[in-house]
Parts: sequence; C-alpha cells; structure tokens
Amino acid sequence: MVHVSILGTGNMGSAIARVVTSGGNTAESFNTSDADKPVTGDIVVLAVPYPAIADIIASRGGQLARKVVVDITNPLNFETFDSLTVPPDSSAAAGIAAALPQSRVLKAFNTNLAATLISGTVGEVPTTVLIAGDDNAAKSQLSEVVAAGGLRTIDAGSLRRARELEAIGFLQITLAAREKVPWTAGFAVVT
Amino acid sequence: MVHVSILGTGNMGSAIARVVTSGGNTAESFNTSDADKPVTGDIVVLAVPYPAIADIIASRGGQLARKVVVDITNPLNFETFDSLTVPPDSSAAAGIAAALPQSRVLKAFNTNLAATLISGTVGEVPTTVLIAGDDNAAKSQLSEVVAAGGLRTIDAGSLRRARELEAIGFLQITLAAREKVPWTAGFAVVT
Repeated sequence: MVHVSILGTGNMGSAIARVVTSGGNTAESFNTSDADKPVTGDIVVLAVPYPAIADIIASRGGQLARKVVVDITNPLNFETFDSLTVPPDSSAAAGIAAALPQSRVLKAFNTNLAATLISGTVGEVPTTVLIAGDDNAAKSQLSEVVAAGGLRTIDAGSLRRARELEAIGFLQITLAAREKVPWTAGFAVVT
Repeated sequence: MVHVSILGTGNMGSAIARVVTSGGNTAESFNTSDADKPVTGDIVVLAVPYPAIADIIASRGGQLARKVVVDITNPLNFETFDSLTVPPDSSAAAGIAAALPQSRVLKAFNTNLAATLISGTVGEVPTTVLIAGDDNAAKSQLSEVVAAGGLRTIDAGSLRRARELEAIGFLQITLAAREKVPWTAGFAVVT
C-alpha cells in the first residue's frame, strides 16, 4: 500500500485523493491551515496553484527529501492568458526539481481537467494521466497508484517533457476558458 | 470554391489534398521537381519538413504575398528527439510569419497524425484540426475548407499559440516513436 500526501483540497486535490483511495491506497489531504502538520506520504502531490509552490518549498523542503514529489501545476499568466510564467526554455517542474534536489520530482495530472479524473473518461475515451520525470522507479510507483485507481497512464519521457505537458495544459485551459472545449473533456490520448 | 496549393506530396501533403478535394474545393500539389511552377492557390499549405521551409521562403516568398500560408511543420531535432529546433520563446510559425510579412500565416494540422486526417477519427473521436493565427478571416477560410472535407476545426487562438501546438506535435511524435500511442491515433480533442 502506498501512502500519498496531497497538499491542496481544491478540485484537483480532491479528485486525485479520490483516485488514490479508490485504488486501495491511502491519501492524506492538507489545506492551508495544516502548515504545521508534516507530510508523511511516500508520494507528495503539490495540488496547489503555481504561485503557492514557492512557500511550500520554503516551509517543507526538508520534509520532501527522498520523497516522490508530483507537480501538477499549470503556471499560466492568468491576467493575460497569453503565456506561462516560467522561463520559455524550462518548466514549473524543472524549477521545482532544481529547488528540491533531494526529491524525486515528477510532472503529472496537469493535462487532466479535474472532472475527467473523477469520471474516468474524456468523452468516450478513458482518461490518461501523462507522467514525465527522470526517476523511473518514481514514475512506476505513481503509475501503479493511478492505474489502481482506474485510470490509464503513459510515461511521457524525461522531466524535460514537462515543458510540453505544461504547453498542453496551458492550451487546454485557454480553450476551455474560451468555451472551445468543455471543462469536462478537452484533450484525450487515444492508444 | 477555394483553390489550395499544397507544397509537398508526402503523407501529410497527400492527406491534406484529400481533405480539400473531398470538400468540393480544388487542390494542386507540388513536389520538389515543381520548383519553377508558381503557386496559384488562395491558400498555400507548406507540407514539407521544417528544414525545407527556408528554401521555399527564399524561392517563393514573392508568390506567397497576400496568400493564406499554412505552416504544418513540427520542427523537431530528429537526432536527439529531445527538443525543437526553433527558439524556445518562439515557434516555426512565428519565424515563417516574420520572414513573410505580406502573407497571412496560420499554424494548422501539425497536431494531427496523417492517418487521422484520412480516417477522420482518432480512435472513436472525430479528428479536430487546431488552427492558430492572427488573421481571423484567414482562419475562417481554412476552417471552412477543412470542415467541408469532413473534419472538425477549433480556433486555437493567436499565432502565439503555435508554440503550444508545436509542443503538442513534438510530444505526440515522441510518444508514437516510443510506441506509447499508435501512429493512427494520439491526441484527440473531445468537445
């Protein structure tokens, strides 16, 4: 059994907690009032808006050493909806990995709209969680937890592919905000 | 009726020609031996590998003035499969638009694997062509041609979104090359 700590109790954090527990693994959720409660999970999911990441790194960096840390953020400039806020040749995940050199950082879930994690489908297509990272054992562990929860996974490659995953998340959010795709669907992966 | 010139007779050029003509519009295709034949289409599709674009701009730039020019390229580094060859804060389409200031440049088709343009589906999902560009009339004209050919289209936003479309095309090609998705499927857009 894998124990998963989920920082954030919004739509995405709640949906990921449900995926974890429906697969027979355990989840503990943290909201902003739990700042003094240490994380105990083997896997820690950072299910917070991107601007909140820096504080988590500052306050919990030591706790996150050796853990699998999952970045799900889409670091959009929400004022312009026209760019990401991370450097164009990098990614939020790469920045987090640089700030947490003792953690095993993965990018995952950012291409999934929350409703598709709950329903298990994007339209008629089974929901696929794309996972990027440089630690194959970490990717396998997360993949097993997600698969146990009933969703498909694909190893999207090294952590450098987080940049492309963030581009997909960015475009998907702009399409949903402009009502070109519904918040319950969007990009699907057909295998 | 819209007349479409398609530079390139490979999988993508052939598939796009078929979409155009099946919608009752006309297509003329050009291969490398047609260098002296001028393009006459209202829309010109650059269905060539990205490294061939510079020569086309040099030799046909004048002919492309005022035309709708459609960039379908995925400018991958095919030696490393680990990056694009265009600047990280830009896109192939942005570079083409800068080189052809009198043309109306669009990005389209690069997120569609050729087989999905022919079949009209990605798995069970209707194939959607994502179109980005700064000229709304040009986007509408291309969208009508594609829709007449039986495919869905979505206006993906300004030409700045070409960067995200190229990220999707890049990731999709790496997933297909690694046999994570078949060349007949890949990313679908569910509306």
